[in-house]
Amino acid sequence: MKVVVAEKCGFCPGVENAISMAEKILAEEKEVYSLGPIIHNKDVIERLAKKGLKTVDSVAEIKSGTVLIRSHGAGPEQIAKIKEKGLKIADATCVLVKRVQQIAEELERDGYEIVVVGDKNHPEVQAVVGCVRDVVVVADETDLGKLPENGKLGVVCQTTQSPEHFCRMLGAVARRGFSELKVINTLCKEAIKRQESAVELCKQVDIMFVLGGLESANTRKLAELCKKWNSQTFHLQNWKELDIDVVLGKNVAGVTAGASTPEWIIAEFVENLEGFDNRVDT
Amino acid sequence: MKVVVAEKCGFCPGVENAISMAEKILAEEKEVYSLGPIIHNKDVIERLAKKGLKTVDSVAEIKSGTVLIRSHGAGPEQIAKIKEKGLKIADATCVLVKRVQQIAEELERDGYEIVVVGDKNHPEVQAVVGCVRDVVVVADETDLGKLPENGKLGVVCQTTQSPEHFCRMLGAVARRGFSELKVINTLCKEAIKRQESAVELCKQVDIMFVLGGLESANTRKLAELCKKWNSQTFHLQNWKELDIDVVLGKNVAGVTAGASTPEWIIAEFVENLEGFDNRVDT
Repeated sequence: MKVVVAEKCGFCPGVENAISMAEKILAEEKEVYSLGPIIHNKDVIERLAKKGLKTVDSVAEIKSGTVLIRSHGAGPEQIAKIKEKGLKIADATCVLVKRVQQIAEELERDGYEIVVVGDKNHPEVQAVVGCVRDVVVVADETDLGKLPENGKLGVVCQTTQSPEHFCRMLGAVARRGFSELKVINTLCKEAIKRQESAVELCKQVDIMFVLGGLESANTRKLAELCKKWNSQTFHLQNWKELDIDVVLGKNVAGVTAGASTPEWIIAEFVENLEGFDNRVDT
Repeated sequence: MKVVVAEKCGFCPGVENAISMAEKILAEEKEVYSLGPIIHNKDVIERLAKKGLKTVDSVAEIKSGTVLIRSHGAGPEQIAKIKEKGLKIADATCVLVKRVQQIAEELERDGYEIVVVGDKNHPEVQAVVGCVRDVVVVADETDLGKLPENGKLGVVCQTTQSPEHFCRMLGAVARRGFSELKVINTLCKEAIKRQESAVELCKQVDIMFVLGGLESANTRKLAELCKKWNSQTFHLQNWKELDIDVVLGKNVAGVTAGASTPEWIIAEFVENLEGFDNRVDT
């Protein structure tokens, strides 16, 4: 069948940096730990695990060696624990994620209560939350009740949210009542470009595939956006997960991928799909 | 018929101050000019005119005497002209309106491009616009094209807009793209209380009257809000303007009034309406 790949998709510079940093350290050092999955992609994690990268949940599990801070970053409490233990740090925090943490700290210093628009369970958001004292995480309208009324609020956003969602939440946060709002646009431009080109593509195809980790926030956001415009949207981790029946009778498929999806997963998927005969047997 | 008056309506402190200042000066001085109508209420203007207050459109028309700056304020250019001519100034600018001007100036000093959510033809907004260099006035979505993209924007609001409108426009301004937004809530709490109590009342009555000058922004906003909830809403300046046919067959009337509507206009309206036999002759 005909397959069109989104103009902008796959690895972003932050993820590329984290992986190449991991590979470099693994070639040099014996004991390398990632605090949480280095990126939200099972295939990449498995590949790096084979090269020796051990993924752990907490600093308590590490006795010696080097700790790789993943692209989503780590809170100052975790960093302090690593330093206390005398472990080496290799910081692969995405520069844009680091920026959100710094901005949140600056806003707090300037007397703002911090509001993070994002998912409270996402490691990036948890790292930002760890950087400040007074902070409210707002995922959607149901979280508005947590906001102080008539506050002086400093608002930032998880880097991988969509501009639509961020701006809708800004209006909603304001509607709760405020004396002052200082909002810094912390959205990742790479993520926005991926969203825009995915939405554009999904409107033109019969079926849309979004490739990437099920835990990957930016991939999930891509899938959520595409679903709005094309109900035949499927979020898969790789070719193996495809139930081939869904493409039967479809002529053109679109493919996009999250920022943590490696090129070889996209290439394998596209190649196999292009080779597939999609005619319905009648 | 039964008439219910909104819990909060009529003169606000800013208007009361402007009128009492005018009366005091008129008792002391011979030549007193108001630069534009002192408040947006014809009846009040006529009353003060009888006491000697002359309303002019520009400083050019004034040769000597005292210039009363009305509650909506005046831009620095006008103030400079008045001072140049050696005229005396009596400043009755509402403190909240003055605050918007000061905030806009501060935001500009801090490097923000100014955005005023409001009506570009309203004197309050014109005075704010006169205080800063780079400024865009946004009335509604049709004005969003005027905004710079990805700007560092300092946003204020005309004091008499509704919170709903202000917050909706904030979301829309953000959606145009921005690097940073600093938003100061410059809405007048008195105006908001009037809006809330008007909306609450209009939902419970058969017919709703909003009393106040046709040019009065806060009165028009009251009428606009009530109309959303009660299609039988009428914006009138006073009792004389009422077409009595509209109340025929109605049992309960609600009455609210803008911040520039004097108590005697409300009292006269309510008294006459209460005395009216609203039964339809059959």
